[in-house]
Amino acid sequence: MPPFGLLHRRAWASLFGQLLRPSGLVCIGEVHFHSQGTRDLSPQQMVVREKILDMVIDCFKRHGAKRLDTPAFELKEMLTEKYGEDSGLIYDLKDQGGELLSLRYDLTVPFARYLAMNKVKRMKRYQVGKVWRRESPTIVQGRYREFCQCDFDIAGQFDPMIPDAECLKIMCEVLSGLQLGDFLIKVNDRRILDGILAVCAVPQSKFHAICSSIDKLDKIPWKDVRHEMVAKKGLAPEVADRIGDYVQRHGGVSLVEEMFQDSRLSQNKQALEGLGDLRLLFEYLTLFGIAEKISFDLSLARGLDYYTGVIYEAVLLQTPAQAEECLNVGSVAAGGRYDGLVGVFDPKGHTVPCVGLSIGVERIFAILEERMKTAGLKIRTTETQVFVATPQKNFLHERLKLISELWDAGIKAELLYKNNPKLLTQLHYCEHMGIPLVVIIGEQELKEGVIKLRSVASREEVAIKRENLVAEIQKKLSES
Amino acid sequence: MPPFGLLHRRAWASLFGQLLRPSGLVCIGEVHFHSQGTRDLSPQQMVVREKILDMVIDCFKRHGAKRLDTPAFELKEMLTEKYGEDSGLIYDLKDQGGELLSLRYDLTVPFARYLAMNKVKRMKRYQVGKVWRRESPTIVQGRYREFCQCDFDIAGQFDPMIPDAECLKIMCEVLSGLQLGDFLIKVNDRRILDGILAVCAVPQSKFHAICSSIDKLDKIPWKDVRHEMVAKKGLAPEVADRIGDYVQRHGGVSLVEEMFQDSRLSQNKQALEGLGDLRLLFEYLTLFGIAEKISFDLSLARGLDYYTGVIYEAVLLQTPAQAEECLNVGSVAAGGRYDGLVGVFDPKGHTVPCVGLSIGVERIFAILEERMKTAGLKIRTTETQVFVATPQKNFLHERLKLISELWDAGIKAELLYKNNPKLLTQLHYCEHMGIPLVVIIGEQELKEGVIKLRSVASREEVAIKRENLVAEIQKKLSES
Repeated sequence: MPPFGLLHRRAWASLFGQLLRPSGLVCIGEVHFHSQGTRDLSPQQMVVREKILDMVIDCFKRHGAKRLDTPAFELKEMLTEKYGEDSGLIYDLKDQGGELLSLRYDLTVPFARYLAMNKVKRMKRYQVGKVWRRESPTIVQGRYREFCQCDFDIAGQFDPMIPDAECLKIMCEVLSGLQLGDFLIKVNDRRILDGILAVCAVPQSKFHAICSSIDKLDKIPWKDVRHEMVAKKGLAPEVADRIGDYVQRHGGVSLVEEMFQDSRLSQNKQALEGLGDLRLLFEYLTLFGIAEKISFDLSLARGLDYYTGVIYEAVLLQTPAQAEECLNVGSVAAGGRYDGLVGVFDPKGHTVPCVGLSIGVERIFAILEERMKTAGLKIRTTETQVFVATPQKNFLHERLKLISELWDAGIKAELLYKNNPKLLTQLHYCEHMGIPLVVIIGEQELKEGVIKLRSVASREEVAIKRENLVAEIQKKLSES
Repeated sequence: MPPFGLLHRRAWASLFGQLLRPSGLVCIGEVHFHSQGTRDLSPQQMVVREKILDMVIDCFKRHGAKRLDTPAFELKEMLTEKYGEDSGLIYDLKDQGGELLSLRYDLTVPFARYLAMNKVKRMKRYQVGKVWRRESPTIVQGRYREFCQCDFDIAGQFDPMIPDAECLKIMCEVLSGLQLGDFLIKVNDRRILDGILAVCAVPQSKFHAICSSIDKLDKIPWKDVRHEMVAKKGLAPEVADRIGDYVQRHGGVSLVEEMFQDSRLSQNKQALEGLGDLRLLFEYLTLFGIAEKISFDLSLARGLDYYTGVIYEAVLLQTPAQAEECLNVGSVAAGGRYDGLVGVFDPKGHTVPCVGLSIGVERIFAILEERMKTAGLKIRTTETQVFVATPQKNFLHERLKLISELWDAGIKAELLYKNNPKLLTQLHYCEHMGIPLVVIIGEQELKEGVIKLRSVASREEVAIKRENLVAEIQKKLSES
């Protein structure tokens, strides 16, 4: 099989272009060396990861975002009461004297803290970084306790739904760009959900609990969700049935219009606000040419406490064959509007409306890794362009002088760390590593003031003048 | 002042090319929002940081390294007894049930753990990532509790000193490439230091304590170091004086030869091994053309426990004016050989010899940030190429359709999130943000099927056909 680098563009295209296969089990490494739910990323994995991150970051920059970075840990009090039921999953640091600290749980709360702390009223920013959650270590579907998030957010007071529509456009661009297969973005609004619960006569105190039941509708059927609502959460059966009439519905912009006509929902002020925003959102999504990727899904609830308006979640659609193997690949991107979070951090409660999205890159990594394995693609993990070899003994000095020249000219070069390596060992190394060029220096070459330049693929060798070495190599590299 | 992006190459060159100025005080942010010793990195800081990291990573790739990543936290037991006196600075995670974890203190120990765990016998890898140390929060010289390290290491059994010489070459390439001003790399060998202490009759039990005193010679004068040895660490005055005769010496390869002739040191087997390796090292460094950057410095000790052979540390040399302002800019890169560390993690004690280096990028960031402030350089924090504007009301739909086309063609584009923005506001935004091109659509253009393309710098406007928009913009961008 040809080494990856030699068919660079083609191989990547075929990697990204293949049909989706869910990743199944992911090995987490040996327990004795490693903390549960974390993992090292091998050079092979890092190449894929960086390729994906580059694509995501490119998209964020295309939309005018600046990059921000925040510390891995925050003051513990900054993270409390932001994540609802999930707060128990926050990693705390040990009290070693001084402040109480916690590892960040997402990139959204640190962003809101940054805006409040620096009194920033407008900002379009992206952040790429790790976050940590004490999830029970399930090892399916690429769920880890340490994982990478790629966030894009727009903060500021603007005319309604324009930034929200851009966030959905970005999700579409990223998912299309990565060629993960067909996808769908579910959209809902927290105010519509609240409106539904209100008109169905759910007591306010149970809103949270019932919402988290509704959120499970993408994983378990309605009758099980209904059972949970009635048996575990103490809802009257007829209230649950009323909820069921709403949350099992999904569709396009026509469903938004239908809900406007709904006799009960149209009496609820909050729901009407949400529906009005969704109507406007669909208008903009149509102009962006992505309306057909969007589904108004009344069961979408999203776990986090801080959302206040539109919420969304992208899921990959599976072929029937894939669906048989594994029920749910899960969401690969999600986000929403959180207009109150910055105000929580501001001493005077001044807030900055925000909307954003997060790309779930770990799942995307898992999918592409699996594809590579299936396709048996060999990926180059180094970028070395030239190998410095010799057929003779006692040529280390010449090799060192030569490679130093290459490095100084910015050429990526390697040699074997051996005084007297065999020529065959050196050439095998090049083939194994996918290094395209070899420069060979021996007694004959030294005498004649030349160097042999060999192409590993064709095995052709040409003699070139020692002083033209760098120029000739650069010419050769620019041709390929 | 012209926005940064418009004089991209020139501005960066002048930024990197200016004289070194030590960074002085660095603000750490407000205490109420932030844990001590950590900080957010603003978009301006992130642009500089990424530029530097790109240069460092480029160099690592030029030398054939693969990228590795390891988790932010390790099992606590993996980090204990690796860092000597500094072990108290390790951040532990709170025991929330399950394993005892600690945040990584450097990237070297996780690398050794990775090699042992995966039974890897040879690897040239780089890693870029944050590490955490509970330093007392001094805010001078860019010392933080969270900071970024860039590590390059070569693991494997090879012929002596070839990889070690390459590590020093890499340090030179990085420091020259960043144009930080003149620098020097101090080199010593742990075995020479041990030999000196032995022939000076220091009791073995005091080696560690005396070494850490010697290591302070770059910050305080010999008489104070001597005082510490005698008064605090209980060394006989004549023993301290004998040590002083050695450790105050530094020089080039000739000092290596001199030490070979030293009547006492030449009796010590360990010291002779170290001297032999240094002699060979200087031979290779000469071939790499960097011998004059290297100083054999008998006072260099390096704090970490795991070093077993050659050790090195790069310092920036200051002009007299700078030296007056601040005594010591500190080391900006360091490393050494650690042949025993992998064996500590291997159940059977099998080891893999390693040598490597770490670039202290935080100090480099601090220096370059200060330079930018002094030069008053304005840096573009976004890469937006085109702004979509309108002079008329009710043109949001047209703007959204248009910008969507640009995004889909991979063009970096922005608009204002406003239904009816003023044209002047839109043009000011472009000037403020350094966006080079504006496309303008209004009633007239819509009627004629054209778009106005405006250059922000020259204020020239040309009408182009709507259907040629993307092609014309791409042409324009490739010209600039």
